Amino acid sequence: MAVPSSPSPLAPNAQLRLPAIKGVRLAVGETAVKYSGRPDLLVALLDPGTSIAGVLTRSKTRSAPVDWCAANLPRGTARAIIVNAGNANAFTGRKGQSTVEATVKAAASAFDCAPQDVYVASTGVIGEPLDPAPITAVLADLAQVASSEGWQKAASAIMTTDTFAKSATAQAQIGGRTVTINGIAKGSGMIAPDMATMLSFIFTDAAIPPGILQKLLTTAIATSFNAITVDGDTSTSDTVLLCATGDRKQRLKNLRSANDPRLRQFAKALDQVLRELAHLIVRDGEGAQKFIAVTVKGAKSTVAARCIALAIANSPLVKTAIAGEDANWGRIVMAVGKSGEAADRDRLSVWIGGQRVAHNGMADPKYRETQIAAHMQGREIDIIVDVGVGKAQFTVWTCDLTHRYIDINADYRS
Amino acid sequence: MAVPSSPSPLAPNAQLRLPAIKGVRLAVGETAVKYSGRPDLLVALLDPGTSIAGVLTRSKTRSAPVDWCAANLPRGTARAIIVNAGNANAFTGRKGQSTVEATVKAAASAFDCAPQDVYVASTGVIGEPLDPAPITAVLADLAQVASSEGWQKAASAIMTTDTFAKSATAQAQIGGRTVTINGIAKGSGMIAPDMATMLSFIFTDAAIPPGILQKLLTTAIATSFNAITVDGDTSTSDTVLLCATGDRKQRLKNLRSANDPRLRQFAKALDQVLRELAHLIVRDGEGAQKFIAVTVKGAKSTVAARCIALAIANSPLVKTAIAGEDANWGRIVMAVGKSGEAADRDRLSVWIGGQRVAHNGMADPKYRETQIAAHMQGREIDIIVDVGVGKAQFTVWTCDLTHRYIDINADYRS
Repeated sequence: MAVPSSPSPLAPNAQLRLPAIKGVRLAVGETAVKYSGRPDLLVALLDPGTSIAGVLTRSKTRSAPVDWCAANLPRGTARAIIVNAGNANAFTGRKGQSTVEATVKAAASAFDCAPQDVYVASTGVIGEPLDPAPITAVLADLAQVASSEGWQKAASAIMTTDTFAKSATAQAQIGGRTVTINGIAKGSGMIAPDMATMLSFIFTDAAIPPGILQKLLTTAIATSFNAITVDGDTSTSDTVLLCATGDRKQRLKNLRSANDPRLRQFAKALDQVLRELAHLIVRDGEGAQKFIAVTVKGAKSTVAARCIALAIANSPLVKTAIAGEDANWGRIVMAVGKSGEAADRDRLSVWIGGQRVAHNGMADPKYRETQIAAHMQGREIDIIVDVGVGKAQFTVWTCDLTHRYIDINADYRS
Repeated sequence: MAVPSSPSPLAPNAQLRLPAIKGVRLAVGETAVKYSGRPDLLVALLDPGTSIAGVLTRSKTRSAPVDWCAANLPRGTARAIIVNAGNANAFTGRKGQSTVEATVKAAASAFDCAPQDVYVASTGVIGEPLDPAPITAVLADLAQVASSEGWQKAASAIMTTDTFAKSATAQAQIGGRTVTINGIAKGSGMIAPDMATMLSFIFTDAAIPPGILQKLLTTAIATSFNAITVDGDTSTSDTVLLCATGDRKQRLKNLRSANDPRLRQFAKALDQVLRELAHLIVRDGEGAQKFIAVTVKGAKSTVAARCIALAIANSPLVKTAIAGEDANWGRIVMAVGKSGEAADRDRLSVWIGGQRVAHNGMADPKYRETQIAAHMQGREIDIIVDVGVGKAQFTVWTCDLTHRYIDINADYRS
């Protein structure tokens, strides 16, 4: 594995310190399945009564752990999450399934819960059998040492090609009570929406029933993990789980909808945590040197705006131009055209770094490349395109395509 | 422009010498619009009575020359094609349109034909106005020197980032008469189906009416130019024109369908020419070090097989793995999954270089990586995937994703 170990130049300067969340205890272990000398196993233990919601990859070749989560999510309860890094247990046939079964069975025994309340996620190499023994051997010990501290260690234990650990936190009021939301995530390559490839685990001490929790999560993901792309590749393992440990007695009375105004602050805080984690994944995009926001407005619908924005954000020609600090808006126009969505070529406008470079279907006569040279040389690139046919808009985030991406992916067996 | 000038390692060893085609005269000129010291303008003059068919980019931001061709193709007749390299005359607003109008008007006068019988194609930078004067100034002279020789020069004059000139030829019998098909093409980056980005001009002395010519061309393109991808990016300028100069009197009696058995040999030869040109474009893919054939079989439909094959062929992770000579079939499985088309994970098989590496949803127990090391180190990579749900199949061709792609596209303003 020839993964560059220095952190991405787009990494945040300081690592966040996450507060404890009542009902959540964490522990990390070393299985040496692939990595040695670093924790590669995370166990999150959840108090009885915890609700769970999840969003999983839409890949048709999803992994055995994803199959397991999909089968159990409708129950809506969780007592543990087990995550291993280094081997995705994907495309491993019946062996993959039996590894999951052995893991949850051992966990149920170690954690004294039903196997169906144990969720598993695996990330790393595809197609190599994952032996459950090194995982199951340490579960009982991890249950002993699990504590409400150690969020940073937890975020580190699930990393593969990531160059920095990813976490976010926010607080909100629900019915006069302050609740906390903590999230960790991993992801660097094989990142594309539906779902953005990654694992992410979000925990809150809010008291929210599973059905409503699921709606809140699905909504928040649409404009966060489903609005980022590194390379347009979708993994077999994408898993986002949201656990709410809040006591049944603390639940709001007559709460019937995720749109209940009493949940508005919480929904906003959840959006913020997911958005931050999504951005961190892009900032750790393999080889990324620049963080790029692409906003498409003037589209016929949000779906169309998203499709056009993704066409731009996934275009290798746009991404290499930005790597070369070239404000090549012609390639942006090309990407709009290839999306297949409605756009009026002769009313199209493009802004880069707030400067209008093209207007009404041609170069803006007032624009000079020198005006945005400093912007192109910066770490944060801002692209806005008005396609001139409607009122809808959508923003996606991506990174540039650099030599480092090739270095990392021509060598790493993932 | 920092384009590497050495030919692609995948270029054919010898340049083809194309025979003359009755009714076609060629001339090249220098306009210095972008390049200096090399021909950058091609004029093909066609005898009266020539039929024309064409397939154009589906981009929503197509160029002014493509607009012009689209408007005139239904007429079915042609007397001249003018192609300039270096400036695509795309996203140039009303100026772009008036450049086309000035060009065809001057050509009609120089070549003594109707402006509507003059077809234009431009390739190169997007978003910069194209002055027609350097083109129109030389048309009369080019008409004087045009000859039935010089196919190689013609193929060279239309190059942009291409590292070698692309041509192909074949012969067929129609009604006891031998006819010739010559084709030239350009294309290297911004190559994706619908349409594969490129310009290609095909000429034959066969006598075929425009409607049938169009059907033959559309059919042949489906498995050639629409079955290749370099980077998944679609240009604003894609243009394929097929001209048949054969005399009206030579036409077959009662020819009503492109499926007429008397055209079978011709259709096969046309397929061959287009396939060869399409392969040459992939072999000149920006930065390409390996030529990759991806065949998907066992799919529910041809459309599904093509979609899955393109998902594999466009995956940056698959393409970088191949650049690194890594038989990373896990990424192939990932790409199958992300295509969204039906596939049976547990019946999926993958062959690389004829060696089965995965079978029934897991690594083939008999497979050892050393068995395909030599294949991975070669120039031609062969991938076959059986998705296990049906009987349809489709093949697409692509190249690997290398450092050179980044070098070329982080610098070149296209």
